Amino acid sequence: MLNYSHLFRGTAFSSKSPKNLSILEDHLFCINEDGMIEKIVAPTDEEYQLLLNMYKDKNNFHQLSEGQYFLPGFVDLHVHAPQWAQSGTALDIPLFDWLNTYTFPIESKFSDLVFAKEVYEDVVSTLLANGTTTALYFATVHKEASVLLAEICAERGQRGLVGKVVMDDPEQTPVYYRDADTKTALKDTEEFILAVKELAKSVKQGVYPVVTPRFIPSCTSEGLQGLGELAAKHDTYIQSHCSESDWAHHYVQQQYGKNDAFALHDFGLLREKSVMAHCNFLDEEDADLFAKTGTAISHCPISNAYFANSVIPIAHFHKKGIEVGLGSDISGGFSPSLFDNIRQAVMSSRMLEDGVNPALPADDRGLPNARITVDEAFYFATAGGGESLSLPIGRLAENYVWDVQVIDTLVPSARIPLYDRNEHLHDIFQKILYLARPENIREVWVQGEKVHSRE
Amino acid sequence: MLNYSHLFRGTAFSSKSPKNLSILEDHLFCINEDGMIEKIVAPTDEEYQLLLNMYKDKNNFHQLSEGQYFLPGFVDLHVHAPQWAQSGTALDIPLFDWLNTYTFPIESKFSDLVFAKEVYEDVVSTLLANGTTTALYFATVHKEASVLLAEICAERGQRGLVGKVVMDDPEQTPVYYRDADTKTALKDTEEFILAVKELAKSVKQGVYPVVTPRFIPSCTSEGLQGLGELAAKHDTYIQSHCSESDWAHHYVQQQYGKNDAFALHDFGLLREKSVMAHCNFLDEEDADLFAKTGTAISHCPISNAYFANSVIPIAHFHKKGIEVGLGSDISGGFSPSLFDNIRQAVMSSRMLEDGVNPALPADDRGLPNARITVDEAFYFATAGGGESLSLPIGRLAENYVWDVQVIDTLVPSARIPLYDRNEHLHDIFQKILYLARPENIREVWVQGEKVHSRE
Ligand SMILES: [Zn+2]
Ligand SMILES: [Zn+2]
Repeated sequence: MLNYSHLFRGTAFSSKSPKNLSILEDHLFCINEDGMIEKIVAPTDEEYQLLLNMYKDKNNFHQLSEGQYFLPGFVDLHVHAPQWAQSGTALDIPLFDWLNTYTFPIESKFSDLVFAKEVYEDVVSTLLANGTTTALYFATVHKEASVLLAEICAERGQRGLVGKVVMDDPEQTPVYYRDADTKTALKDTEEFILAVKELAKSVKQGVYPVVTPRFIPSCTSEGLQGLGELAAKHDTYIQSHCSESDWAHHYVQQQYGKNDAFALHDFGLLREKSVMAHCNFLDEEDADLFAKTGTAISHCPISNAYFANSVIPIAHFHKKGIEVGLGSDISGGFSPSLFDNIRQAVMSSRMLEDGVNPALPADDRGLPNARITVDEAFYFATAGGGESLSLPIGRLAENYVWDVQVIDTLVPSARIPLYDRNEHLHDIFQKILYLARPENIREVWVQGEKVHSRE
Repeated sequence: MLNYSHLFRGTAFSSKSPKNLSILEDHLFCINEDGMIEKIVAPTDEEYQLLLNMYKDKNNFHQLSEGQYFLPGFVDLHVHAPQWAQSGTALDIPLFDWLNTYTFPIESKFSDLVFAKEVYEDVVSTLLANGTTTALYFATVHKEASVLLAEICAERGQRGLVGKVVMDDPEQTPVYYRDADTKTALKDTEEFILAVKELAKSVKQGVYPVVTPRFIPSCTSEGLQGLGELAAKHDTYIQSHCSESDWAHHYVQQQYGKNDAFALHDFGLLREKSVMAHCNFLDEEDADLFAKTGTAISHCPISNAYFANSVIPIAHFHKKGIEVGLGSDISGGFSPSLFDNIRQAVMSSRMLEDGVNPALPADDRGLPNARITVDEAFYFATAGGGESLSLPIGRLAENYVWDVQVIDTLVPSARIPLYDRNEHLHDIFQKILYLARPENIREVWVQGEKVHSRE
């Protein structure tokens, strides 16, 4: 009882279930030296006063000020770290041009470790400042720069899951930006896995290597097969893009005579530790396969508005038992903030439910029961992301990691409108989700360590 | 040449036309004592060096730092000022409950001038801090509090167009929140108009009274008729909601046997100085009537995702010659930022073009040619808003008002990702539109006066 590394006191919001919010009003959070929440104590508990008396004058006691609240850190399940350099540009041009005129040229520059360091330090710091405590990253095809990204996560205190990207099909990739050949792609991937596993031994919050075929169209079948084997051999995470757009969906159907999901599964790429981005065009059988294999969907609502030709029926897939988290998809999505993606997830779901074309009769316009609430979108950004990665993160609950954002609603330059002293905490929570900006995120903690502060 | 009130030097972005951006690199902007841009001087002009030498050591010379840019101030064409108090809450419940459990009770509290002052000062300051230099406001039914809002705009330096809301139909409004009767509603409106016109005599940037029937369903036909006459008599602006949702659209059809647009027109409520919010369900004849009468559409993309059951085909209506601006629609829209609404306007337009339901074939899913570019959305937020109000605002051009936001891309806590020293200015502009946050807005000027600063 006297040995906690930190004792925090304040009001916290955390998901109990997708539709139910847990509001822990003025609780104590007891953090052990591993950075885990060992105990949560309510004001009505006997120990409460005892603990307060023990810790209240110590340096490791942290009490929130009026107007401050704890939220779990966000879990971003899809970030192209190098694309931070072009975030917000050229979203008006077709995907093909976007990739070939902007994205591939930028990614190819990450052979330069000096440039890579500059951008990667920025993106990791930026995500932390936006409350993202865990991120699942695509790096580039370059092994060294990909290891560097993992090192930067380690050093900055973010829980980083990092993939060296594989693009080994010369037919579908530009000559200046691809793996030398399939054999090299697999060798580099295995060396990358071992290097990150080595690095991880000394990283409190964890860093993890991720097997990362860009997507089926950019890889050979030998490459995909080899990557599935490497993931099994080293028990790693896997990430890729799956059935994102009409083009990608049809390309795989034509090449393999089946949908993305089954093609990926045949290569050993769908497993408990797999996270697939977008997945807009999964059919019912694909979805069943996701649920059966424990493959999670990374829902990227902002990016999908630009490049996915549709809104994913995420409520339906989640109800089928598929794990779901949110992804910023920098820079198909322009925003580094999962707050922005929470908002867009809600809006997109309502646009799917109501439909979009006012010329159609209301009954033919949309897809009934497609909407999600803002509480559910928050669940995806936190607890759902944790479940997708099978890690004890995304909830403020006992035996979960202390990954936290401290939100201040009273920052003078970014006050959240609160006028009623008796405003329901659930309403305050919703105001935070809809109106908080990086300025309101005063501190960010990962695994019991403070990694960002605006004081 | 020696008598300018201010001389500004820097790079500015402004709309030349909806699809064409004007980039004024390192220009001089000469502001006269009325707060107008009297002259713009390019570095290649003869006068450039002469002016620089004359002004460079004076207090009224302002040079942007590296990484800083001028944007025109935004014009927000639809804000419910009292609803700032509930922004971000309860967006998951149906419109009827949202109005009756949250919105009408909050608005009714503005009979209390102390409460009104607190919220109105906040909302005006918040909009200025978000770069909004002109706002078209709905206040509440209360005459005094509505005048107070105009006074606060006057004092804070924002160009405010303010309406006392009319809701005089006892069948469709709650007993605790409505006009006493039709006669009182019209009398209060006329007194309100006169009070704001009196106030305007001493306000440099302008404040304007706006005739404001909430929407047809909350007003009697006598009330609407009387409001049309008042607008003509005093030559005022008019605002209301028009064909927002399936429910509202059908309600008016049933009550009047015609669409909103024609009903409003019959009451004298569509004229050059009219701005109608939402307008999602205008048909072609309605749209022609808007174009003919000079009535503008206030496009509220965030709010529409929640309450409008559709995406407005804004590209089509704009092409037909209707004036279009953007509206935050606080708090049907949660965000006080037109940056957020620019982003959503682009995303929603793409979702309309591509469609939303992935179960439909691509060809049946969306509405071709519906997308707008981010440059067009910027046009709506600036020049389009100015045209809608028939005021010389929204452009950085000669004989326009100096309403400006100074954007700093290098703020340490909110750096916009720029790594290439030769990055095209048009790409930088797009990064600003997609990534700028209030922290990046260092100064805001209205009519040649500095009204907000973060130094
Ligand atoms: Zn991606
Ligand atoms: Zn409205």
